[in-house]
Amino acid sequence: MKNLRINKKRLIDRINTLSQIGRNKNKELTRLALSDEDRKGRDQLKAWFGDLDLKFELDQFGNMFGTFQSEENKNEKPLMLGSHIDSVIDAGIYDGVLGVVGALEVVQTIKEEGMTPSRPITVAAFTNEEGVRFPPSMLGSLVYSGDLSIEEALDTVGMDGKRMGDELERIGYKGENLPGFIKPEWYIELHIEQGPILEKENTQIGAVYNLQGNSRREITFTGQANHAGSTPNKMRKDPMQAFSYFSSSLFNYINDNELDTVATIGSIKLQPNAATIIPAKVTFTLDMRSPEQTGFDHAQQFVRALLKEIEDDGKYGVNAREFAIFDPVIFDEEIGDTISASAEALGLSMKKMTSGAGHDAQMINRIAPAAMIFVPSKDGVSHNPNEYTSDEELENGVNVLLQTSLTLLSKSK
Amino acid sequence: MKNLRINKKRLIDRINTLSQIGRNKNKELTRLALSDEDRKGRDQLKAWFGDLDLKFELDQFGNMFGTFQSEENKNEKPLMLGSHIDSVIDAGIYDGVLGVVGALEVVQTIKEEGMTPSRPITVAAFTNEEGVRFPPSMLGSLVYSGDLSIEEALDTVGMDGKRMGDELERIGYKGENLPGFIKPEWYIELHIEQGPILEKENTQIGAVYNLQGNSRREITFTGQANHAGSTPNKMRKDPMQAFSYFSSSLFNYINDNELDTVATIGSIKLQPNAATIIPAKVTFTLDMRSPEQTGFDHAQQFVRALLKEIEDDGKYGVNAREFAIFDPVIFDEEIGDTISASAEALGLSMKKMTSGAGHDAQMINRIAPAAMIFVPSKDGVSHNPNEYTSDEELENGVNVLLQTSLTLLSKSK
Repeated sequence: MKNLRINKKRLIDRINTLSQIGRNKNKELTRLALSDEDRKGRDQLKAWFGDLDLKFELDQFGNMFGTFQSEENKNEKPLMLGSHIDSVIDAGIYDGVLGVVGALEVVQTIKEEGMTPSRPITVAAFTNEEGVRFPPSMLGSLVYSGDLSIEEALDTVGMDGKRMGDELERIGYKGENLPGFIKPEWYIELHIEQGPILEKENTQIGAVYNLQGNSRREITFTGQANHAGSTPNKMRKDPMQAFSYFSSSLFNYINDNELDTVATIGSIKLQPNAATIIPAKVTFTLDMRSPEQTGFDHAQQFVRALLKEIEDDGKYGVNAREFAIFDPVIFDEEIGDTISASAEALGLSMKKMTSGAGHDAQMINRIAPAAMIFVPSKDGVSHNPNEYTSDEELENGVNVLLQTSLTLLSKSK
Repeated sequence: MKNLRINKKRLIDRINTLSQIGRNKNKELTRLALSDEDRKGRDQLKAWFGDLDLKFELDQFGNMFGTFQSEENKNEKPLMLGSHIDSVIDAGIYDGVLGVVGALEVVQTIKEEGMTPSRPITVAAFTNEEGVRFPPSMLGSLVYSGDLSIEEALDTVGMDGKRMGDELERIGYKGENLPGFIKPEWYIELHIEQGPILEKENTQIGAVYNLQGNSRREITFTGQANHAGSTPNKMRKDPMQAFSYFSSSLFNYINDNELDTVATIGSIKLQPNAATIIPAKVTFTLDMRSPEQTGFDHAQQFVRALLKEIEDDGKYGVNAREFAIFDPVIFDEEIGDTISASAEALGLSMKKMTSGAGHDAQMINRIAPAAMIFVPSKDGVSHNPNEYTSDEELENGVNVLLQTSLTLLSKSK
């Protein structure tokens, strides 16, 4: 089986097919979770499951599964391969899609070879990984892991005021199965890196052994609006002054520190946002990531202390909504080593690495051994139409997924 | 004449009449320059000019004048009293209106007393003081002062893409006279303070001897968008890091300095403005004001040097559009002292002060001696429906305007 290879053309065709589902008039790709565009993407995936005679199953949160099984292996825990097919606004075509379509390709390759693996292989597509319409991200796999109740998750209200449960029923993808109903033996997620490391180091495959801790907050400083007249800055309750103090203190901390924590203030909103009016309110998001628990905890403490300092000053109202605090994740070493060995056996350059972004694998890792495979992202760009990975690099990634799967399947029992 | 007083009821009635012109469905008052609402306000003012038999004149930029004159004094340079009647969006009812309606009230009081002053008295309402629809602000009085050509000013394009010259003709307020055609002997502008000082110090009248220098910029830092993943902050081209450095350096400079300069970052926009994406671009406004030329110049130098430092760092694109740099203004001391003396003679508490906001008086000061009278603004609030000055405080201000006018008119010749 070491010589078995996937079909590159079929892989690329499927990526291209999905890339056309959800284009608006301006040709922008937007397949937000539980939108009509997401439904069309799901319909396509379901059709592919049908083409390959996979057993289609849906859970109550809309997580989709297509299982290749036989009479002999159907009672074994499956190998699960997957990712997600929802997207951000004006997205690229690879994020998430590669892991699902790559999994389909692995199954089809094995199937066409006439093999009967020791275990079923399940292709998974998790609901709302991006969290753009319904924050937070990775909600489908979080629910699947059992760490958020299905009732609470279905009550999530989106940016557009719609309830997830209602939208799920509307698009016809609310299933009967309880989340977590298929407990895999292993979970592997192939994904584009969404960072610059592999490309910069001219490396073809990333074997992902761990994943950065990620915290996301929405922070509001409230002051008092006023005309930008003569009131001395010290006497003002100008929340932009609080923000400047906060953000510069934070970036200084991050840049002076060797703990590998990164911080992003990606969005900000002033009220009323007019040139000659001191704002009443500044609301912004803070995303922080650390590969190690120590650095992660230290950064969380730093931010909480800084917010308390500003609040204790008494001038500003401070509200910090911590809407995702995910500790760093250590993936399964056996799967990581199998990925590393498979890449090397295929003659591909390989790097053992940390994921900078969050992925469904970190949630599934809570209920089963999991790990990830990365392929290069041009310029590290993602969440953007310029997201790019060459066809050959995609092919390499899926071949590593195939060989890793075969090795794991040959190990069992 | 020292006992002559204005008619409070008539004053308040006129303010209330104008306050109803330009209300939308939500009862919000918006009388943007050269809009249909502005036209209706102008029609009302013109009707009042007619009621008082004032000579109505219009210049080519729509600045409106109503002159009370006699055969004996018509060749003398007039005393000019005025302000503006255009408003911001969702405005208060006093800003600008008080100076125009107060001038009408002064003229009517003198007229009804049967006096023939030594000079004509001209009531002025300048076009587009607010600059909300057509930036920059104070454009009508700037053109009137001769420091911007009428051709260039008429070509100003508004936020809605409309050209001022076209809109002026559309509403029927483009006159024949050249801006500056009436050169006053003195100009006095009565205005609400738009700041908290008078109210805080429990003072009824501000005699305004000078006006803060005001600079307004729109600054853009351009970096490179990317996923908020693992790229170390130091390696990112994150324009929010540049902004944090800029804003904290600026506020530290302002707060550590005794030069009385104030700075407001009132609006900001990130692109793409998403929690998990390092922004490509940060655009924000910076408004700075200083009462003294030295402090004003020093702050301008500080900002330019700080921007150059960020640009020289080589990481970011820096674009700073200086769309208004108005030096501090020293008003006419004789008028200021006459205002002070008039307030005291009326038994009102009085403070010699600096204007924090820009006003038409600063432009007219370039062609004639000018000064201003302030009355208190509750909580310093302006450009807002909560703008409030009590009827009695308004009355006080107009009585000071009347007595100052009488004193100046008695001095001449």
